[in-house]
Amino acid sequence: MKVFSTRLRVRYADTDTSGIVYYASYFLYFETGRVEMFRELGLPYDYHLPIVETACRYRAPARFDDLLEVQSFVEETRSKGFRIGHRVHRVLDGGALELLVEGHTAMVTVGEDRRAVPLPPRFVEAFAGE
Amino acid sequence: MKVFSTRLRVRYADTDTSGIVYYASYFLYFETGRVEMFRELGLPYDYHLPIVETACRYRAPARFDDLLEVQSFVEETRSKGFRIGHRVHRVLDGGALELLVEGHTAMVTVGEDRRAVPLPPRFVEAFAGE
Amino acid sequence: MKVFSTRLRVRYADTDTSGIVYYASYFLYFETGRVEMFRELGLPYDYHLPIVETACRYRAPARFDDLLEVQSFVEETRSKGFRIGHRVHRVLDGGALELLVEGHTAMVTVGEDRRAVPLPPRFVEAFAGE
Amino acid sequence: MKVFSTRLRVRYADTDTSGIVYYASYFLYFETGRVEMFRELGLPYDYHLPIVETACRYRAPARFDDLLEVQSFVEETRSKGFRIGHRVHRVLDGGALELLVEGHTAMVTVGEDRRAVPLPPRFVEAFAGE
Repeated sequence: MKVFSTRLRVRYADTDTSGIVYYASYFLYFETGRVEMFRELGLPYDYHLPIVETACRYRAPARFDDLLEVQSFVEETRSKGFRIGHRVHRVLDGGALELLVEGHTAMVTVGEDRRAVPLPPRFVEAFAGE
Repeated sequence: MKVFSTRLRVRYADTDTSGIVYYASYFLYFETGRVEMFRELGLPYDYHLPIVETACRYRAPARFDDLLEVQSFVEETRSKGFRIGHRVHRVLDGGALELLVEGHTAMVTVGEDRRAVPLPPRFVEAFAGE
Repeated sequence: MKVFSTRLRVRYADTDTSGIVYYASYFLYFETGRVEMFRELGLPYDYHLPIVETACRYRAPARFDDLLEVQSFVEETRSKGFRIGHRVHRVLDGGALELLVEGHTAMVTVGEDRRAVPLPPRFVEAFAGE
Repeated sequence: MKVFSTRLRVRYADTDTSGIVYYASYFLYFETGRVEMFRELGLPYDYHLPIVETACRYRAPARFDDLLEVQSFVEETRSKGFRIGHRVHRVLDGGALELLVEGHTAMVTVGEDRRAVPLPPRFVEAFAGE
């Protein structure tokens, strides 16, 4: 299982009045991770991949201006979709990573009529290589 | 000039790590005010009203769970658009209003090809009555 | 188990380019549901309730300006926290509800030092009555 | 006047149901530009710089996954604050820039009591060099 990584900085808008990153903001980081993973895999990232489930477990908080590393990987392929795993770490001085949250997103592949269709060959192939 | 009012509560997500409402969140409140004003005027609120300019002046901060009153009004009609004024107040105990921010949004009326078109009669009529 | 309900409208900002509500926006609706539930129960809603887990299953999409009913209820109390269940429905013409998403949020009760502490009596009592 | 540049990609969450970037999202891009400008200038970016005014003029829309270049520069220094100019461009294939929006943000320097104080010497110096 190959892990794809991308880095980003926590923005002011991502935080809330408790001084830490708002719980929903991590789902935006997950999406950035997925988009960059798909770009590397040469896969389209579009409307034909509706999300059917997502979840996040919080271990430690991120704060404004933290440098984060978002890791994404194919956790499972299904007959008509797949599940992506996510991990968000803080990049510490010196470069070590501190795990902050873990989660996943399950997506289905749909046709023009938005009904589920079998996972297209290009996804099967791209994921098989990982 | 008639003023349209709607009320909403500050959400956690609207605040930032400085303990107050994030500066961009007020533009979401402005939009809620516009949508409710258009609903009362019987006007459509859709893609054919692109925003060409917006601004906000900040006088006092709002905080999590504050009850806000958003006021909206037609500030100016133009040959191919209009400008909406916005005021956001905190509703104090007892019901008095404390002005927090003021702003405006200028929109143009466009056709299917997204080129500006003269302000449609239904807008002229709706705004004339105010 | 008492279910607490609150209503809200989908904002432009909550939607994305696919024409439906962005998947992370539902976590903002969940929070509005929790805040209003806590208000009714007379409980504080603050920094001493960090979220440790959340999840959402998506059944049908919401769109701009939909009127939504957010339902919140205590799903489980734990020695040092609790889990809130969430359901978001579309309010159809005529008033019937269409289930759109289901989810939950688990929170722990912490002290000043942010370490987990036993569920305070006021929470035990408020939840017991439900 | 030195112009500071940073690049970012449009996220799904930044867009709305009209298929383009939501009007308030540009203020998040402005902030990313300011934060990176301050980092390069060695200046703190914190709560003691409340925003008193902001504005944006929209010329052309950005879309999901567009690569943007955000430019920031000191437009004006004042006795107790300053005004930052912003420009957001789309980076076209080949590297040319297409101007999408222009704006500014005015900030005041405040003390612990949140009252305006004269622009601190480190700001005067950092800005003088630009």
